[in-house]
Amino acid sequence: MSEKRVKPAEVIEELGDSVVKEIKSGKNPKFTTLVRTKSNIEFDQKRGYLKLGSNKEERSFLNISQSKRFMQTIAIASKCHKFVKENLHTTIRGLFYQLKFSLGEDVDENIFSEQAESNPLIEDLEVALDLRRENLNLNANRKGVLAGNMKIIDTFGNEKIEIDCSKQGRSGWAIPSDVDNDIEFVDVKAKYVLVVEKDALWQRLNEDLFWKKENMILITPQGQAARGTRRLIRKLADKGLPVYVFTDSDAWGWYIYWTIKTGSINLAYMGGDVATPEAKFIGVTISDLDKYEFLKKMTINASDVDLKRAQEMLNYEWIKRHKEWETELKRMIAIKKKLEQDALQGPRLTFVDDYIRDKIKNKEFLP
Amino acid sequence: MSEKRVKPAEVIEELGDSVVKEIKSGKNPKFTTLVRTKSNIEFDQKRGYLKLGSNKEERSFLNISQSKRFMQTIAIASKCHKFVKENLHTTIRGLFYQLKFSLGEDVDENIFSEQAESNPLIEDLEVALDLRRENLNLNANRKGVLAGNMKIIDTFGNEKIEIDCSKQGRSGWAIPSDVDNDIEFVDVKAKYVLVVEKDALWQRLNEDLFWKKENMILITPQGQAARGTRRLIRKLADKGLPVYVFTDSDAWGWYIYWTIKTGSINLAYMGGDVATPEAKFIGVTISDLDKYEFLKKMTINASDVDLKRAQEMLNYEWIKRHKEWETELKRMIAIKKKLEQDALQGPRLTFVDDYIRDKIKNKEFLP
Repeated sequence: MSEKRVKPAEVIEELGDSVVKEIKSGKNPKFTTLVRTKSNIEFDQKRGYLKLGSNKEERSFLNISQSKRFMQTIAIASKCHKFVKENLHTTIRGLFYQLKFSLGEDVDENIFSEQAESNPLIEDLEVALDLRRENLNLNANRKGVLAGNMKIIDTFGNEKIEIDCSKQGRSGWAIPSDVDNDIEFVDVKAKYVLVVEKDALWQRLNEDLFWKKENMILITPQGQAARGTRRLIRKLADKGLPVYVFTDSDAWGWYIYWTIKTGSINLAYMGGDVATPEAKFIGVTISDLDKYEFLKKMTINASDVDLKRAQEMLNYEWIKRHKEWETELKRMIAIKKKLEQDALQGPRLTFVDDYIRDKIKNKEFLP
Repeated sequence: MSEKRVKPAEVIEELGDSVVKEIKSGKNPKFTTLVRTKSNIEFDQKRGYLKLGSNKEERSFLNISQSKRFMQTIAIASKCHKFVKENLHTTIRGLFYQLKFSLGEDVDENIFSEQAESNPLIEDLEVALDLRRENLNLNANRKGVLAGNMKIIDTFGNEKIEIDCSKQGRSGWAIPSDVDNDIEFVDVKAKYVLVVEKDALWQRLNEDLFWKKENMILITPQGQAARGTRRLIRKLADKGLPVYVFTDSDAWGWYIYWTIKTGSINLAYMGGDVATPEAKFIGVTISDLDKYEFLKKMTINASDVDLKRAQEMLNYEWIKRHKEWETELKRMIAIKKKLEQDALQGPRLTFVDDYIRDKIKNKEFLP
């Protein structure tokens, strides 16, 4: 990412130069990228995240099945080069319309429009150039909010804007799409990071000033974590902060946890940049039923999806090596019940604060 | 809303007292609310928003079809009373778990869980007590972001936190669920409010410091506007600021516009509190095709939903009285094409800035 101090414009120019050179010398212009299909995605056991294997793919112009995509990819590279030079950002939708404008009516909705079609081409470019979308000035969707004892220095509109994340009131600081370029995280005075699945519970804990009382950083990805939020969690872990994840004990909650911890198939090409293998799972767990008597009447029925997912997870090599998770999943399948993090508000609204404190004090985490 | 300086706890106590009194005197406890079905929703032609009619409904305990709902509503009122007294907020999900905790295992997922089932009861209470969810300390989902020359005074955690909406960098200020209680909007130094459908375009305009250059307030509801965002737009209009809405010219974009302008069926019981009839539609319009030649190659195919919706809208009394909209819709149906706001980035990323400036300068709005 930006820490590598790459100069994206120069990298794109190199690609352009090599293509021009090949054309001039009568060769077939091409570039090389890594295969991003499942067959080339592997779980790095040692480092603990999903990444691409080493299978390479050549994209060449004089190949009937590739020439359209080759042309499109070069057109994308050219536009991104312009965006970087202009120092302006857009999205892949904005990029699409710039291409439509330049190339004329031939580029219609059906040829080159849906994100499903243009996404892979941008990813080709990211992988081929070893750059990230963020360096190509293409914003991704953003989601996620943060409060805590830290500051942001956001270089924005030629000003250095300082945002104190302990002074954002009920709103919190909205995590942007790009947390690498022209942005710094300073004065991080916290003992740990807690990632809470639901915005509603984030608001609950924020109202209790939990982050202030516990000297921690409170994040919600607002459901599945967006690229910017995953990257921010990684960066905070790099500062030496432990990361704890707090979700429902169901298929969706676990998925959110694994995505933060090990990355995802979709972003496997970003590997360790968006994974935090050090992250631990704080709850809600089915084993909480033993510890907190009242939770027994707070369970709700697990859905078929939840049960199917639990069964699938039991077959993962990683789970087999972590008995705590195996026990957890088997028990859920046996009782066919799940627990939501909101259930901890049952006895009183602030009970969830004590629950988290207790878990952290006793180091009661799942790996 | 809160401006009425109602004391929610007292209002709930009055309801409780009257129920107790009726029980003690051997009467059937009851309360009265307004009917919220479509039959009692009307469009106020003069004021320009959707509201409830005057049809009332009595909810009584000694009515077999109502007694469960009556009990549940009173239980909800009791919990909300507690939340207000504690000065703590939760969501209807947190409320559900508190009820589950108090009432024991009998209240299972099937009896009282889905928002679809508990929402109407809370709305019953809001209407019966002439209070809003926000006054009952129940947060709604939040969504939406703002940048501009204004400040927020958020009384939060016994501190008065000042948030300068011109110093929020790339992130903007996240619009909360409740913009009425313990929160003030001061130093509003802007000429108008622009509501931009898509967060991506908000980020584009924010990067250009459009709000600073034009001295305006830039809001995105991030799609359909949440309750908090609708209410905030109303409050800014109350400060005398013109409100312009900028969406795609398609079914979804129009729906976003009408919801901001006239309110919605779902929130008809909130009437004028969440509607801004003064709002005007800035674009994108199909008539933009005449003014901006390049847009002709930027259209994309209208979907069946878009065309069906346009046809339905043509039958609205209000549309029939506003020829500009009639022309717009008929033309869209004729050419079967739509325009996205992102299309304005075609010629250059900053073109959209000029487009908005031009529309505002020439007062080119649809009503």
